[in-house]
Amino acid sequence: MKSDLAKSLHYLFYPSSVAVVGASSTFGKWGFNIFNRLTSSHTKVKVYPVNHSADIVLGHKAYPNLLEIPGHVDVAVIVVPRDSVPAAMQECVDKGVKAAIIVTAGFRETGEEGARLESEVLRIAGKGGFRVVGPNCMGHFNTAVDLFTAGPVGIRRGPLALISQSGNFGEYILERGNEKGAAFSKYVSSGNEADLTVEDYLEFFAEDDETKVICAYIEGIKDGRRFFDLARHITKKKPFVVMKVGRTAEAARAVLSHTGSLAGSDAVHDAIFRQCGVIRVEEVDELLDVALALIRQPLPRGKKVGILTAGGGFGAVATDACRRYGLEVPALSEETVQILNKYLPPRWSHSNPVDMAGTFEGNFGCIGNLLKTDQFDAVLIIGSIGFPLERLDYSTTTVEINIQEYAKRMIEDELRLVDGLIERIDRYQKPLIINSTPGGSKPPALAKLEDNGIYTYRTPEDGAKVISYLVRYSEYLGLIK
Amino acid sequence: MKSDLAKSLHYLFYPSSVAVVGASSTFGKWGFNIFNRLTSSHTKVKVYPVNHSADIVLGHKAYPNLLEIPGHVDVAVIVVPRDSVPAAMQECVDKGVKAAIIVTAGFRETGEEGARLESEVLRIAGKGGFRVVGPNCMGHFNTAVDLFTAGPVGIRRGPLALISQSGNFGEYILERGNEKGAAFSKYVSSGNEADLTVEDYLEFFAEDDETKVICAYIEGIKDGRRFFDLARHITKKKPFVVMKVGRTAEAARAVLSHTGSLAGSDAVHDAIFRQCGVIRVEEVDELLDVALALIRQPLPRGKKVGILTAGGGFGAVATDACRRYGLEVPALSEETVQILNKYLPPRWSHSNPVDMAGTFEGNFGCIGNLLKTDQFDAVLIIGSIGFPLERLDYSTTTVEINIQEYAKRMIEDELRLVDGLIERIDRYQKPLIINSTPGGSKPPALAKLEDNGIYTYRTPEDGAKVISYLVRYSEYLGLIK
Repeated sequence: MKSDLAKSLHYLFYPSSVAVVGASSTFGKWGFNIFNRLTSSHTKVKVYPVNHSADIVLGHKAYPNLLEIPGHVDVAVIVVPRDSVPAAMQECVDKGVKAAIIVTAGFRETGEEGARLESEVLRIAGKGGFRVVGPNCMGHFNTAVDLFTAGPVGIRRGPLALISQSGNFGEYILERGNEKGAAFSKYVSSGNEADLTVEDYLEFFAEDDETKVICAYIEGIKDGRRFFDLARHITKKKPFVVMKVGRTAEAARAVLSHTGSLAGSDAVHDAIFRQCGVIRVEEVDELLDVALALIRQPLPRGKKVGILTAGGGFGAVATDACRRYGLEVPALSEETVQILNKYLPPRWSHSNPVDMAGTFEGNFGCIGNLLKTDQFDAVLIIGSIGFPLERLDYSTTTVEINIQEYAKRMIEDELRLVDGLIERIDRYQKPLIINSTPGGSKPPALAKLEDNGIYTYRTPEDGAKVISYLVRYSEYLGLIK
Repeated sequence: MKSDLAKSLHYLFYPSSVAVVGASSTFGKWGFNIFNRLTSSHTKVKVYPVNHSADIVLGHKAYPNLLEIPGHVDVAVIVVPRDSVPAAMQECVDKGVKAAIIVTAGFRETGEEGARLESEVLRIAGKGGFRVVGPNCMGHFNTAVDLFTAGPVGIRRGPLALISQSGNFGEYILERGNEKGAAFSKYVSSGNEADLTVEDYLEFFAEDDETKVICAYIEGIKDGRRFFDLARHITKKKPFVVMKVGRTAEAARAVLSHTGSLAGSDAVHDAIFRQCGVIRVEEVDELLDVALALIRQPLPRGKKVGILTAGGGFGAVATDACRRYGLEVPALSEETVQILNKYLPPRWSHSNPVDMAGTFEGNFGCIGNLLKTDQFDAVLIIGSIGFPLERLDYSTTTVEINIQEYAKRMIEDELRLVDGLIERIDRYQKPLIINSTPGGSKPPALAKLEDNGIYTYRTPEDGAKVISYLVRYSEYLGLIK
């Protein structure tokens, strides 16, 4: 059974050919969106448009039905109107497809008649022995083979996998992720989950070498027992971050009319997630922020946070945030004060948070030592790394030095020191959570850190929140006594 | 006394001339930063560099001391080393300046000796009868006269005033504000508040016609009684949004070493803020989001939120968020369902949240009716307004229609409908909270709404949070029974 599932999902994500049944050249139609997305990535996977009246769809030779396609078809994406879906599924059976994605909506989520039709469609698929994604879904992708039936253009290949029971919210998570520099391995919009469920994708992504962190947006879980057993097993090796909506009766009502899911008791979900090591987040930014931290950062062995800032205000804000999220911000030992004295001017705060009082020279030395000392389990820094290029006003031509030269040197200095920071993160096995300062372009040092899997966070509050999630996961894994 | 304060602060924000004592051409020095910022705005205010050795600073004729400046000097900005500050203040007395800003640090926040020097400096200022900003501050601005001793380049003129006891966090708030489209009237980094305090600036901004919403980042309040009396009076007419740090003992320690402030009991502050109508926020994004909503949105007369989305996932997320922040998401009345039926295809959710099921045509009609019906006190919309230009793939040249033409028409349609939306917000006196979808450029309809003071928010969660703050302010003002 398990190997059957793995085989089906392998066909889904690594097909040699994909046909879009209902592909269209008409802008705005789903048949346009999906086929256009599929062809815009220049994937090496063979793609075929199926359209009963057009000879050509978006420049590709079209076929009146699946059976007319000369080669075999691994995956069929169905975007025809609801009442034509059963016939399309019969074609899938006759063609011998290995997996189908039903994008078309109007099934179980609309009531009894839709539910009947959904059962009928599944029954037909059963004859062909292939598995079905959806219906009422928005596609999938696998960046490893440039295969996209969904996903915003510009998605990067990387270690995050996403399962979303909402197609639009899935796209939203991917786009926000794009903005944050996140990179993805695989994605699936699971829709009504008439056949394949979150549990199935979870099982598959757990074994996927391209995936280091699994993320999911969940409205309802079909098989709680299987979910629990799978998650408990998986979270020991791979983090699993979940945003589960439907906490309230009002949202449960929304969920039912959306994908026909039963949201279930929120207290039960909370308990299940906690017991099987699922990291449950509340908001979309948290989902991404926590997932990004789990890619590369070591897990903390305690709750003690050392804070380093370019100015006192940041420190006060970060300290309040750490405390709000259950972290500790202990005072500096005399020994640590002595060590930091070597790097900082006399006016530094001499306490935790370490306020560097407007200097930058001692920055890297201080961070390295905060990572090193047994006093702290995690280090949070704000506004100290990442020379903000935008802040330099190049318009001042009368200045005594060449500002561009100055900026170039500062950037080179920072870039040189980044390697040392990464080495220390690994050596001392502590997370280094970096908050970026606002501004358009990404400073080169932060970009280099990001290339190495060390992401930056928007605000001191976001950074503190991320550490608190890491701590909870560490506690679950028994890393904190 | 009050008129003296008003006069001093008027000089501070509307001077006819400003001298920077310690102005420098050396990149990176405070004397460079401040003088460069001052001259980069091309303000009509006269600016003079004072430097004991240079003849020219950044292209401006420099003077060896204040007294050599030929004209009068309204405001002196002091950036000389700490031990030279008393002499500089004596020059201010002799020159007859009307206000001084002491940027230099190393005073009360560093301990006893610094505190003594701070008293000495104040004593000298007292002889001249002028008021002092700082010390240990980072300047101020008034966009009405293009006067900037602080603030990121690119700040827009608008209705928000900001008082910040932290210079770096003040700049951070301004930069984040810039990113969100916020526009500012006046700003002051108040530093140690040896003389002028948050209470003083608050009193001044309350009477400032350019300021519609007052924001503050506060570490400690000097005169609680005066703050309370002022705030209680002001918040009846002008919203006052405060981020007060130092909730915890650890942050209080950070605050003391930063600006020498006593953070005080957090429970006491909470009670004071609640009783005088101050809107206390937790995070920097909340500070800005709430302030932006208060500029133009009507205040809600209850807690009932109508939600409209482009897809079901958004609705579930927004509903959970609304409930989490204490708002209500009531079901739709049969009458409202009938009205919305006219605008939406049969497959819409027929419930609140209103899931338009991927259509956009009925969008504006639905929003107008949700604002109109007595069922709701506020309307939250996600992903429905603001045609996302980036999502259009112009690379597809074989498409049957001209996509650019199509996009242009959609944008024009939306722009035409925006006026109607604004009219309805005003007519029905209900806030319309719009969540933008991710992406680089701002869709024209959202930009037009922003030009009219209706801002968009990042996530459904942020939008729900903003409504909850508005509700609490309405409750304070007695608008909700």
